[in-house]
Amino acid sequence: MRRGMQMAEITIKDIAKECGVGVSTVSRAINNHPDINPETKKMILEVIDRTGFIPNNSARNLKRTDAKCIAVLVKGITNPFFSSMIQIIEEETQRNKYALVLRHVEAQEDEIDVALELEKEKRLRGIVFLGGKFEHSEEKIRKLKVPFIFSTIGVNVPEQMNKMEFSNIAVDDRMESQKLTEYLLGLGHRKIALITERSERPIGRLRMEGFRRAYAEHGLDVPDELICYVQEDIDHYSMENGYLTAKKLLESGKEVTAIYAVADALAIGACRAVLEAGKRIPQDISVAGYDGIEMGEYYNPKLTTIKQPVEEMAKKTIRLLLDVIGERREHQQIIFPAELVVRDSTGPCPK
Amino acid sequence: MRRGMQMAEITIKDIAKECGVGVSTVSRAINNHPDINPETKKMILEVIDRTGFIPNNSARNLKRTDAKCIAVLVKGITNPFFSSMIQIIEEETQRNKYALVLRHVEAQEDEIDVALELEKEKRLRGIVFLGGKFEHSEEKIRKLKVPFIFSTIGVNVPEQMNKMEFSNIAVDDRMESQKLTEYLLGLGHRKIALITERSERPIGRLRMEGFRRAYAEHGLDVPDELICYVQEDIDHYSMENGYLTAKKLLESGKEVTAIYAVADALAIGACRAVLEAGKRIPQDISVAGYDGIEMGEYYNPKLTTIKQPVEEMAKKTIRLLLDVIGERREHQQIIFPAELVVRDSTGPCPK
Repeated sequence: MRRGMQMAEITIKDIAKECGVGVSTVSRAINNHPDINPETKKMILEVIDRTGFIPNNSARNLKRTDAKCIAVLVKGITNPFFSSMIQIIEEETQRNKYALVLRHVEAQEDEIDVALELEKEKRLRGIVFLGGKFEHSEEKIRKLKVPFIFSTIGVNVPEQMNKMEFSNIAVDDRMESQKLTEYLLGLGHRKIALITERSERPIGRLRMEGFRRAYAEHGLDVPDELICYVQEDIDHYSMENGYLTAKKLLESGKEVTAIYAVADALAIGACRAVLEAGKRIPQDISVAGYDGIEMGEYYNPKLTTIKQPVEEMAKKTIRLLLDVIGERREHQQIIFPAELVVRDSTGPCPK
Repeated sequence: MRRGMQMAEITIKDIAKECGVGVSTVSRAINNHPDINPETKKMILEVIDRTGFIPNNSARNLKRTDAKCIAVLVKGITNPFFSSMIQIIEEETQRNKYALVLRHVEAQEDEIDVALELEKEKRLRGIVFLGGKFEHSEEKIRKLKVPFIFSTIGVNVPEQMNKMEFSNIAVDDRMESQKLTEYLLGLGHRKIALITERSERPIGRLRMEGFRRAYAEHGLDVPDELICYVQEDIDHYSMENGYLTAKKLLESGKEVTAIYAVADALAIGACRAVLEAGKRIPQDISVAGYDGIEMGEYYNPKLTTIKQPVEEMAKKTIRLLLDVIGERREHQQIIFPAELVVRDSTGPCPK
């Protein structure tokens, strides 16, 4: 998969040549050796970053019998978006000679508690949080000793948190959601149902804020009666939940010309409910999702969505985490651009 | 997810009561203590198996700072069928207080070599192989010291392998595939295209054998020109590969009234190719898959398939492995029944 994107193996010699320095200088930059000009170090690390070069630590690794590991804590593991993330994170972790420990966080569990438990694992070097909430108490989060990164769970880092204590990789969920809603409004839709979650998680809230902003920008009132919350007792971002929530909406008899579900899995479930109600997509009801999972390209009709750059985000998650672990970089907050992909599931508002 | 199926916590007292023995006897059965009547032990273990009781080892676990772990080696991680398997295996492993190490095996890697490498990990207690081939040399397989289990990768345990050295969980792929093909033949289809893989993996081969047997049982010749192999250079069991393979078939101009793809992901990709060719499903071309992934229920049209009992198989995989690790059970070869699920993507052969 994605073999076309893999590059020929880059060696430390290539990096040295490219930078016009000796191999030992590159080595000092990589190993955070104090005996190097900061400007040179910065330049070398930038080249390394650009080329995707992975320092070969095999000599060091040979001395160990047990691998170092990175833990990935996933809240909402049935969301197909996370399947792609995990797959790429796993490949990238492996390429860097780390073992990956996968841990599913139950809806009622607190992911920081789970992380603190995992920290007892001596070879744990870093943690990736996928899904879950963001508002943890500073006191609690300070207990985590290994570097950690929140990935694709929303960008609103709370004010009270020191941003330098962890990294965060995300798209601008509010802005992207607003973009999708504006596209639907531009098609003439006014009765747009929003399928989202009621919980404290930022993803659903930010996407709802974007939805509301688009209406406000157009000087329109949000149809509050069309805001539908998924069931709390099953996985929030699942096809099943999208199906059940849309079915309830359609059975209520409320007028609706478009459905925007804040995850593609929900949108695919919603499509099934629309089709079962004897309606056509998009002639009777348009349906749009969010995430850009592969399934959306193969669904019938093909799904309109906000496509997150999942491969780049997953790779950056691991590379940044490893850089922080290796003390080659400070923690960072990185926002990736997402793309509005218009396919066949959305069309003009019916007259 | 599946909360309805979780049961209230069962204690060792409940087991003792159910068996009409004392708690210490149950404890002896669980801990493989020699001082117990074999008949009693068998009966207790059967009750434990039926109730899903998990021995509470928390006292023992508190003494450890590092968790024991089970490794899952996956070949073909993009196959959505494995996503479900991994998810349930992860939940079950966690419930049993083991950590799960996930390792993606590249197409060109040998999974036994990967396993031997992972064995250097001192706390590794067992290995699950998902996907991949079965025909490994006995010499090589004997090098693996921890218990291991092949799960859902085909039932034909080679003669030369001592069946007692490992466990195997599968459905009878040949028979189930024959059942699906017979259903299509029964609808009047004769020009059935088979989308499968050319590799040495048993899954594709067994499912092809079932396809051939069905034709033979009907006294018909297999339309060899309609046997289509997926591309070797991208993931074998992916939507993309199903799409590309079906597209090539349809562009060849060969007459075809049904497509049977040996994985649901392939079948969904094939559906997209059929629809793009301007054909209707199932009025012009029927499409059937194999696996029973959730997506098939939400696809439009809903996908006819062979549904493997993924939840039961995944749970049994971990429970059996843990029993072997705990020396409470010998290795076993277990065949689960699968189900032909007829949905909307298949219909009578067009006249």
